[in-house]
Order: sequence, then C-alpha cells, then structure tokens
Amino acid sequence: MRARDHGVIVGSGTPGPHNAITDVPGVRVGHTTLISGEGPRVVGSGPVRTGVTVVLPHEGSAFDEPVYAGLHWLNGNGEITGMAFLREYGILGSPIGLTNTGSVGVVRDALVEIEVGALRKGAVSWSLPVVGETWDGSLNDIDGQHVTAAHVREAYARASGGPVEEGSVGGGTGMICHGFKGGVGTASRVVDGYTVGVLVQANHGRRDRLTVNGVNVGRWLPASPAPYEGAGSIIGIVATDAPLLPHQCRRLAQRAGLGVARTGGAGENSSGDGFLCFATGNRNLPANALDADPPRTYQVTVLADEHIDPLFYAVIEATEEAIVNVLVTAETMTGADGLTIPGLDGAVLANLLT
Amino acid sequence: MRARDHGVIVGSGTPGPHNAITDVPGVRVGHTTLISGEGPRVVGSGPVRTGVTVVLPHEGSAFDEPVYAGLHWLNGNGEITGMAFLREYGILGSPIGLTNTGSVGVVRDALVEIEVGALRKGAVSWSLPVVGETWDGSLNDIDGQHVTAAHVREAYARASGGPVEEGSVGGGTGMICHGFKGGVGTASRVVDGYTVGVLVQANHGRRDRLTVNGVNVGRWLPASPAPYEGAGSIIGIVATDAPLLPHQCRRLAQRAGLGVARTGGAGENSSGDGFLCFATGNRNLPANALDADPPRTYQVTVLADEHIDPLFYAVIEATEEAIVNVLVTAETMTGADGLTIPGLDGAVLANLLT
Amino acid sequence: MRARDHGVIVGSGTPGPHNAITDVPGVRVGHTTLISGEGPRVVGSGPVRTGVTVVLPHEGSAFDEPVYAGLHWLNGNGEITGMAFLREYGILGSPIGLTNTGSVGVVRDALVEIEVGALRKGAVSWSLPVVGETWDGSLNDIDGQHVTAAHVREAYARASGGPVEEGSVGGGTGMICHGFKGGVGTASRVVDGYTVGVLVQANHGRRDRLTVNGVNVGRWLPASPAPYEGAGSIIGIVATDAPLLPHQCRRLAQRAGLGVARTGGAGENSSGDGFLCFATGNRNLPANALDADPPRTYQVTVLADEHIDPLFYAVIEATEEAIVNVLVTAETMTGADGLTIPGLDGAVLANLLT
Amino acid sequence: MRARDHGVIVGSGTPGPHNAITDVPGVRVGHTTLISGEGPRVVGSGPVRTGVTVVLPHEGSAFDEPVYAGLHWLNGNGEITGMAFLREYGILGSPIGLTNTGSVGVVRDALVEIEVGALRKGAVSWSLPVVGETWDGSLNDIDGQHVTAAHVREAYARASGGPVEEGSVGGGTGMICHGFKGGVGTASRVVDGYTVGVLVQANHGRRDRLTVNGVNVGRWLPASPAPYEGAGSIIGIVATDAPLLPHQCRRLAQRAGLGVARTGGAGENSSGDGFLCFATGNRNLPANALDADPPRTYQVTVLADEHIDPLFYAVIEATEEAIVNVLVTAETMTGADGLTIPGLDGAVLANLLT
Repeated sequence: MRARDHGVIVGSGTPGPHNAITDVPGVRVGHTTLISGEGPRVVGSGPVRTGVTVVLPHEGSAFDEPVYAGLHWLNGNGEITGMAFLREYGILGSPIGLTNTGSVGVVRDALVEIEVGALRKGAVSWSLPVVGETWDGSLNDIDGQHVTAAHVREAYARASGGPVEEGSVGGGTGMICHGFKGGVGTASRVVDGYTVGVLVQANHGRRDRLTVNGVNVGRWLPASPAPYEGAGSIIGIVATDAPLLPHQCRRLAQRAGLGVARTGGAGENSSGDGFLCFATGNRNLPANALDADPPRTYQVTVLADEHIDPLFYAVIEATEEAIVNVLVTAETMTGADGLTIPGLDGAVLANLLT
Repeated sequence: MRARDHGVIVGSGTPGPHNAITDVPGVRVGHTTLISGEGPRVVGSGPVRTGVTVVLPHEGSAFDEPVYAGLHWLNGNGEITGMAFLREYGILGSPIGLTNTGSVGVVRDALVEIEVGALRKGAVSWSLPVVGETWDGSLNDIDGQHVTAAHVREAYARASGGPVEEGSVGGGTGMICHGFKGGVGTASRVVDGYTVGVLVQANHGRRDRLTVNGVNVGRWLPASPAPYEGAGSIIGIVATDAPLLPHQCRRLAQRAGLGVARTGGAGENSSGDGFLCFATGNRNLPANALDADPPRTYQVTVLADEHIDPLFYAVIEATEEAIVNVLVTAETMTGADGLTIPGLDGAVLANLLT
Repeated sequence: MRARDHGVIVGSGTPGPHNAITDVPGVRVGHTTLISGEGPRVVGSGPVRTGVTVVLPHEGSAFDEPVYAGLHWLNGNGEITGMAFLREYGILGSPIGLTNTGSVGVVRDALVEIEVGALRKGAVSWSLPVVGETWDGSLNDIDGQHVTAAHVREAYARASGGPVEEGSVGGGTGMICHGFKGGVGTASRVVDGYTVGVLVQANHGRRDRLTVNGVNVGRWLPASPAPYEGAGSIIGIVATDAPLLPHQCRRLAQRAGLGVARTGGAGENSSGDGFLCFATGNRNLPANALDADPPRTYQVTVLADEHIDPLFYAVIEATEEAIVNVLVTAETMTGADGLTIPGLDGAVLANLLT
Repeated sequence: MRARDHGVIVGSGTPGPHNAITDVPGVRVGHTTLISGEGPRVVGSGPVRTGVTVVLPHEGSAFDEPVYAGLHWLNGNGEITGMAFLREYGILGSPIGLTNTGSVGVVRDALVEIEVGALRKGAVSWSLPVVGETWDGSLNDIDGQHVTAAHVREAYARASGGPVEEGSVGGGTGMICHGFKGGVGTASRVVDGYTVGVLVQANHGRRDRLTVNGVNVGRWLPASPAPYEGAGSIIGIVATDAPLLPHQCRRLAQRAGLGVARTGGAGENSSGDGFLCFATGNRNLPANALDADPPRTYQVTVLADEHIDPLFYAVIEATEEAIVNVLVTAETMTGADGLTIPGLDGAVLANLLT
C-alpha cells in the first residue's frame, strides 16, 4: 500500500497511471535485491541487505541514443559518476545505476561491460556511465562489497515499464530514511500534456524533522533506533518527456531538493543529496560514440522557459510523494548486528495527518 | 508588530536579542525609502515606491576589511553584481546594496564613490561592489530610475545595528510577496554560541502557494490583485559570526533557498532567488587593494563541517521567519496607476494557523 | 596598421572579410571615446582616458530577440553584470557594454534606459543588462566616473557592422596590456561555413611573459613604465553564427582563455579574465519579457558536438590575434600624472618574430 | 632520459630535486603496469597495455588525514570520481587512482577495500574515492577490463617518494599523446619556498598542434598512425605544500589547462581534460569519518591571494614540462591489432628547437 492508498495525498497535481517514473513513456526500472544472512556483521560474509537498481531513459539503448540531462547537488556528500561528462555535454549517454556507496565501482564497470556486449561488432567502448549511491552500512555489510556485475546485468535485464516495486528493493534495500526503513519510492505528475516522474533512493533525514504535507509528524513519533541521525543521503532521478535543453534539466533537478526540504530534509552535512534530470522530448541526439560521424547539425524542440513553472511544481510534489511512498512501503527490517529499523505504518501516518 | 508579536513562531530555534541580522555582532543595516506621487504612471515622474538598503558586514570598512562569503542561486532571474569576484576569492569586499532592478547600476557606482571617499588619500579605487535587486515595477515607476547616488550615501550613513526597520522600506519599498505587500524582513537564530541572521528583500511567490509553518494558508486567502503571479524575486543575505570558509558560506547560502521552499516558493521562472552568505568569524583577511602587500600568510579559524548542521537549520528557519516578517509588517500600499496591494494582517494569519 | 599589415600572421585559419567580430553577420560595434585633460590627477576633473564600447549581437533589438550565450572566467577579478541570468537561461537578452571598473553601473542603467525607450509603448522594463569592465586607473581618473548615460547612448547609436576601430578607443581607451598601451582589438576566422569573431578589451599581462606566435618577445623588450605589472584584466566577447546551445557557447568561451594563455597571460590574481560567447545561429528564441506569452515550444538547430573542434581552434586563434591587434594598433598615450605608456611598434614586433 | 637530459628546458623556473610531483614533501606515487599478449584484439584476452597509478598526498593515510583540494575541467569528456564530495567540502579524503576508462570502477572500489583494511577495527567505511582515467582503447584491449583490485593494492603498496617512473607505466601504459606514445610524466617547480609538482597521464592532442617552448614542432613531424586524432584526454594532478584553501586549489587546477594549451592542446571535444590540485600546507583537517567527533573549530594557515601568481606560473610551466617528459620518455609500443605508436625521440625534439 502506497501513500495514496492510505489517503495521504501530496499536493494538488494529477499523477500518471502508475504514479511512477515509468509514466514517462519508455522509462524502465529494474531491481536486483540482495538479502541474506543475519546476526553479527562479518565483513565479506554479511548480513547482506543491499542491491542495485537500473533506470533506463527510454525503450532503446541509452548508450546509442542519449538524451538531454542536467544535475544538481543540494549537498555533495555523495557520488554520481559520469558527472563531468553530463555537465560538459548536457547528455545522459548510459543507463543509470543506483547502489550502495561501497559498490559504485562494480556497477559502473558492469555498465561498461553491458555496453561492450551491446556493441560487440568490432567497436570498442567509450562511455562514462552514471552511477549514484547512498550508504547502507548500518543494516548491510557494506564493506563486504556484495554487489557483482552479474547483479547489475540482472537488474538491467529486468528493467521494464509499468508499476515500480518500492521500499526495500534494489539499491534501496538497506536504506534508512528519517529513522524509518527507507529505500526506493516513486511518483509522477501530468502537467500541460507532459509527464514528470521522480524516483528516489532515500536514506536521509532526521526523525524529528520529518514533515508530510506541512505537518511535522516526526516530533510525535517515537525516537529511532537508527545510528547517525541525519546522515545518509538521497538520490533523486527526475524524468520528463517535455522537450528540455540541458540547462533546463538542471533547473528541474534543483527543484527536487525543494521537495526534500518540504519533507524535512536540509541537505545535512553527512548527506549526499544529488538529483539528476533527463528529458526524453528530443530523441534524435547524435550518439557520443568513438566512430560517430553525425550530420553537422540536428533539430530539436525546446520548451519555452515561460512555460516551465508547472514542471517545477510537479518535480517538487512528485519528490515529496516519492519520499512518503518510500516510508510507507518499506517494511521493518533487521540487519547487521541485529539492528532493527521499523517501517512507518501508513495508517499511523494517515492518522497523524487528520 | 512582527510574526512573533502575533504568536506566529517559526520553528524551534532561539532568536537573538533583536531577532534580526544585526544580532550578528557588527552587522549594520540602513534604508533610504522613496515614496512620492500617486495616480497614473508617468515615466520619470512617478509614482515613486522604491529605495535602497545597505547591509554592512561589520562595524569597520567593508572595502578594507573583507570577510569570507559565498552565494547560491535557486533561480538566476536576478542580479547580484560582484559575483565573479566573490566566487573567485570567496570574499565580500564591499557593502551590500539592495534596490530595484532598474537602479542596480547607480547603487553600484555610488558604492565605488563611497569607497573613493574613504580612500581619498592618494589611492585609487579597486572594488567590485555587491548589489542585488528585485523588481518593483508594478507599484513603482521603475523605468524612471529614481534612485540616486545621494540616496545610497544616505542609506550608508544611516546603517546601524539594533532593531531593523521592516516592511515597505529601503530596497523593499515597492515589493510584492505572495500577492501581499512585500519588502524587507529579518530574523535570527542563536546556535552553539554562534548567531545566524537573515535579511530578505522579498518580492516573490504565488498567493495560492503561500505556506506558513507547513500550513498552506494561501489557498484560503482571497485572490491577489497583483499582476504577474509568481514573478518577482527574493534576495536573501545570510550573516553569521561562525568562522566559515568561503565554500561553507556557499553551503549556508543554498539552505536559504530551502526556507523559501518551505514557505511556498519554487524559484519560479521569472523569479531571481539569490542568496549571499558572509561569515565574520575571521576578521584578519588581507584587503584586496591595489597597493596591498600583505604578509605572505595569515591564520584563520575554521568550523569543522561535522558541526555545521545546526547552522543549516538556523538558516532555513530564519529565512522562513524573515519572509513571514515581511508579510505581516508591510502595510497596504497604493502605487502606480492606482494599483493597491494589501498587507497581510498578522492577526488573520495567526488565526489561520490555530 | 594591424598585425597582418605588419606580416604577423597568427595561426593557420582564414579570417573573415574584416578580420573582426563584425564578420559574424549582424554583429555591430560602437565606441564612445573620452580623452581630455592632462597633468596631475584631480579626482572628478581628469585627466580623462576612458570610454564605453557597445557590442550588439545582431541587427535587431537585443532586448526583444535574445540569442543563446555562455560565459567562462579564467580569473574572476572582474565584473560582468547579468551573469546569473545568463547562466540560468543560457541567453543574452541585452546589448553588451564594456567600460572601466568604476563606471559599470552607469553603463548598465543606461542600457535599461535604452530598453525603456525602445519599449515605451506601455510596457515596463525587465532586463538584466550585460556590462563588463577592465581597470584604467593608471592613465585615467577612474575615480572621477566620467562616463555618463549620454556616452552610452552615443556608442549604442553608432554601433555598426564593417571594420572595427581598434586600439585606444571606447571601453579600451585607457588600458594597458603586457606593459604596452592596450585597448580594443578584434579578429575572426571562417570555418566549415561558420564565422567566429572575437573582440577583446585588453588590459592584462606582464611584459616579460608577452608571447606572440610562440615567441616570448616580452623578454627582449625594455621594461615597462606601467605600474601594477600583471594586474588589469581582459574581457573577451566571442560571437559566432554557428547554431550553438548555451552549454556549447560556454565551451567556446573557455577556449578564449587558452588564447590568452598562448600569448603569455596566466589569469593573474589581480586580473579579471572573463569571456562571453553568443551564438546567432538560432534567432527565434522567445523574448524574456514580462508580458511574453510565447508558444509553448519552439524549434532550434544544434551543431553536433563532434563538429565543434574547428570552432575551438578558431576561438583560440582569433583571441590571440585580437590581442596582438590591440598591441600594434594602440598608440603611445600620456595620461594621469603624466604617465606615458608606449605603444608596441608593429614593425619592431614583426622584426622580433623573424 | 627526460626533457632536460636532452637540453629541452621549459620556462625559467627552478625544479625541485627530482623534478617530480614527489618533490612536494610526503607525496608518493606507485604504478602497476600491465603488458601482455600481442596480435589481434580478442576482448577479454588482450593484448593488454594498461595499468593503474596511485598518487598519495602525504606519508600518512589519505582517508584519515584529508587535505584541501579543488578541481577544474578544461573539457569534461572524462571521469574523476569523488568530484561532488571534493566540490562540496574542498577536501581530498582518499588516495588518487589513475587508470583506463573501462576500469575506473574496479580501481574505485579497490580503494574502498584498502580503506576498509586500514580501518578494520570495527569501523565501517565511508569514503568517496577519487579515480581519474584516460582511454587506451587503441593499444589496449580496454573492453577486457584487465585491471583488478589486486593491481590497485600493488600500486598502493609500491607508492613511494623520490624519482617517479615515467612513460608507458601505470595508468599511462597504453596512452597516446599528440600522435606519439603517451603515458605518465611529471615535473616540479620551487617558488617562494613552496614546491609545486604536477603529474599528468597524457593521452591527448593532435600531431599538427604539438608545440614545445612555443615552437609548433608538430607541423614538421611525420603524420601519426594513431586513430582518433585529438581524441583521448589528459588528467593532471597538481600538488603543493603551500597553505591553500579549497578555492585556491581550484584556481591552481585551472592553470594546469593553460599549460596544456601552451603545448598545443585545446580541450578537444573528445578529450577529457581534468585537473585536480591538492595542498598539503595544512595537515590538521578533521577526518570525514562516520564516527568523527572533531573539536568544533580548528586553525589553518592561508596563503594571501596577492602572493599566488608565482604558483600559477609554476603550475603552467610544470604542466608543460610534464607533458614533454611524457613524450620523450615513452618508447615506441606495439599493441592491439599490431598498431604501433612511435615514441618521440628526445634528440629529434631538441634538434627541432635549436
């Protein structure tokens, strides 16, 4: 049951059919969830509470068909690989991987390997994949680096449109959010004929600052057993089919942070709060391939800035709702060293809001 | 009467003695308010509803004794002169001027003239003054460019510590905020022995998004007569006596935008939402003067990043409260072409929150 | 006589018909040059050795027909107003003014006034004009702030295509470059059917580092009488008719700094080395006007990044040549307090290079 | 034999004892070089021409004792992981790894593993390691991803001060520079009692643009057999013992790009030209550890900006010389599919310069 199933309606906008990032046509999401072992932490053995999530910007190959993109950090205590490329060219030219802090590298190189597989016709690889992370070291044996290239291939193969599994899945498996069990959440809004979808991997926030629809419910809820209050991070992926240029994507990305702020986040010092927005409204961009010899120019459509505010509001609302969806879908989990992090009961939340 | 006088308490932090940016020791504020004429707009004649505000970082000369500083734009539809210098060197080396969009230049050059006066001992000027703006063209004959160098000198001469005049004064005279009369507001917080003060010149926001303490009061209030909903801008000055380095100031500056978001702002497309933070915790920085020959090195104190979160929370709260202070202190004003913008009655607001 | 007239050929590219920024169709340049008085400096009286230059991106109104643009600072000890807007929206929506450091404000506000005049049909102004500067305080009574709005109007009215006056003219009147008389210079290159033009206001550089076509001629030339070696600044305007997006303009802007480096500049600490690039290849961008209600989307053409290198090389070469053109066209000048700064004799330079 | 051994002296500055980045006290460099196989490329088998280089900022643990740092991209077609953290906090808190484009991930995760090993006292890891890359896919079976965590541990274990092995070693093993065999090079300068050292992994540049000491020698040298002219990248690491703050490190980093420009680079479109500068002049920064509870404030020393120019010049010169050292030390190599890339004979180069 998601936030709306509990009667918690965030904002006034209209969600898409799945109220998910996959409402943006072509966007696909796949998870590999790794849960095994219990008891004391033994580095390299477990307990394992982690995984990997892959987000694909459209139904084709992200390597061969880039889309415009931009990013923003509310607080840069985190990693999104491929950032320099994304800033210089304004394009996303790879799938997006999301995982734990200690496994960013294996996910990144696995995406290169997937590219190589796709291109194995003589061409050599040339990509700078995008992988983000949050830190699951409280519940997960993060130092065991349990994610493998095979797990990435699985998530990639499973990626599909339609409803998105939320809560303790994929890259969000071992996360903690505002002292409750965190993880993956998503939501969407339809405005002016465009769809805006947001997917978060939420591992941030202090208990006492948790705010839903303006109500600071965190003050009324019991203290959290989670260590490192306010630590952790949130990575947000914003997708839209509006025809945005790179700098407009960057503008949308910054608004995701405002959604974090409205639910009680502050980009705390130990939090890596980074947001990446891609726009699929132009699908004819030349590939950034080594042997590419594209025509000198190409045509694109641009949304006039004067019409961008509804998208801003949609990003803020969808980010808020995606965070609430994380909280009410992620169930109580016991992880390393027996630490138990409670899920937030959606009914309790709904009750506090009425 | 300010927000707290109406029983509207924002957040849980403790304000300084004046609940103002001037609670940061040495910080001074001066206003020149220009109100004259009424009736139809005649460019060059009026009606005039504008002014200039000067913020000084300490009791000395800002030209000769710079302080570390940083800035952040939530949305860059605005001007803060001196920005390239501030980013390259991480210092504020001039007073800060705030005025209307059409008068940025005269205020900037007047600050140079003030510097020249201060240095008129043979030295020549070498400064890149910092002047921000918001747009008061609905109530004010902005195209008449009524601010003069003399007005800037007055504001500079009047700058003092202690209570700060709020509402329709100084640079904020003709502003509109969330469809109510806007202007200047301020607030402060004391945390860990440091003071954080915020002063805003608020001219931003849509009526229906206005949110105070999480309550979306804007939906319940009558529609605004103000044209260009959501247009306008907010400039925020964040001051602290904590010993911050330039990049830490920039981090605080970004958090002011989170305070804007929590009161309903979104960095709308036509809004210039820029925030400048300066830190007076180190007062021995070498002047950026032409003939300067400072010792090769100097010593500074640095706040450990691990202790910065309380300052982040303070910036967010003080920004929220400064905006509410604008709204409840700025009284109804009639300006150009007879346009009347209502003030927000603090009692009405307080009532909506209970 | 310009560099090529002395047989000094920079690089291998092909200049446009005027070897000037005005080779980009529609680009116009106008100067107002202020030279009066001699002898001891009396602040407010003179001697005056300054001026203002206006660069217009096309034959129409820059306020009403913006073009994509981007900027880069090699060293931010300088001012370019309108920077936040340019970064957020990626457009240039005003003429560009160039003047001395103490007169940035008056030029900026005069551009607003020009806009008001152009729009005086009921609309009110809404612009954030772009004005850059370098510091002419050695030769000019900079503290006297001798530039007026009338001077800006004159430069604006005079702006035209065709050959560009170089040397001690306009904003560059009182400048010093590598210890020689500096000022305004320009050059252009034609590549792949596009034109790239560069105009610099050059006031930077140490004598001993001056390098032309790889030859460090500065070591062989007599010491300069100029005070503040390496101080000063260089502002570069890069224009092209290639269809570039904003982030591509920013990329070209950074390459102008490489041209500065190849002639011996280093972005010295006291130097404001800023570069703005605009691209006129798309002329249908919606105006950023207050009452604008543009269609939701518009179409633009984009140069594929894979074809951008020739433009990079053109920017570097044209910047180098523009700097050399400054040096050989600016004649010896005596200014405040009798300071005489020698021009660089083009024949001497040519001799050193053979 | 290095550039100076051939009589090629770049600039006028004084190198340190090893003319290497290791002249900065405490800085250590270690290489693992992987060369095996020959003949046709078989993905996963070889030929292998790659490796990994580790740069350590001091003699202690980079994880536990961070140093101030900053970075700059001349052209962002490359990867430096850990970039968001470095920008937000201004610190380098890990070793620096350099490798090929397809192996960034394994090197990054191996550095996490090394951290875990170092901390295996109950603490869990919390780092965002810095790994840069250039692309060796012409000579190396890059898609085989031949670098392993064991290779990283070896390079880390071998890291030492003193002379640095240059040419086709470590991360630079399979690189190509200006059409000649590329790789690793280093140089240093001593100024004002401080040392500035630069290490490059050079894989960039067109043959016809190669310029040494201002002489465009590339025009006189035979065409290169290397594919993808001007593709590739250069990563530069700048180290200094001057007491710089983060924003000052960023300023030095940008100057490394000027050294690239002076040797003929242009930040070409397919080139990832990124520069990271760290400063060891302050060694008492609090660790960015999860359980850190540092004192609220600490003291640092700051170089006055007015004294920074000599460091700028040193960075430019040392970068130029490091690139020339790459070219004259890297010997002819035959790699995948029998491609042979010639080394540049230092005697030939010296001859061209006289």
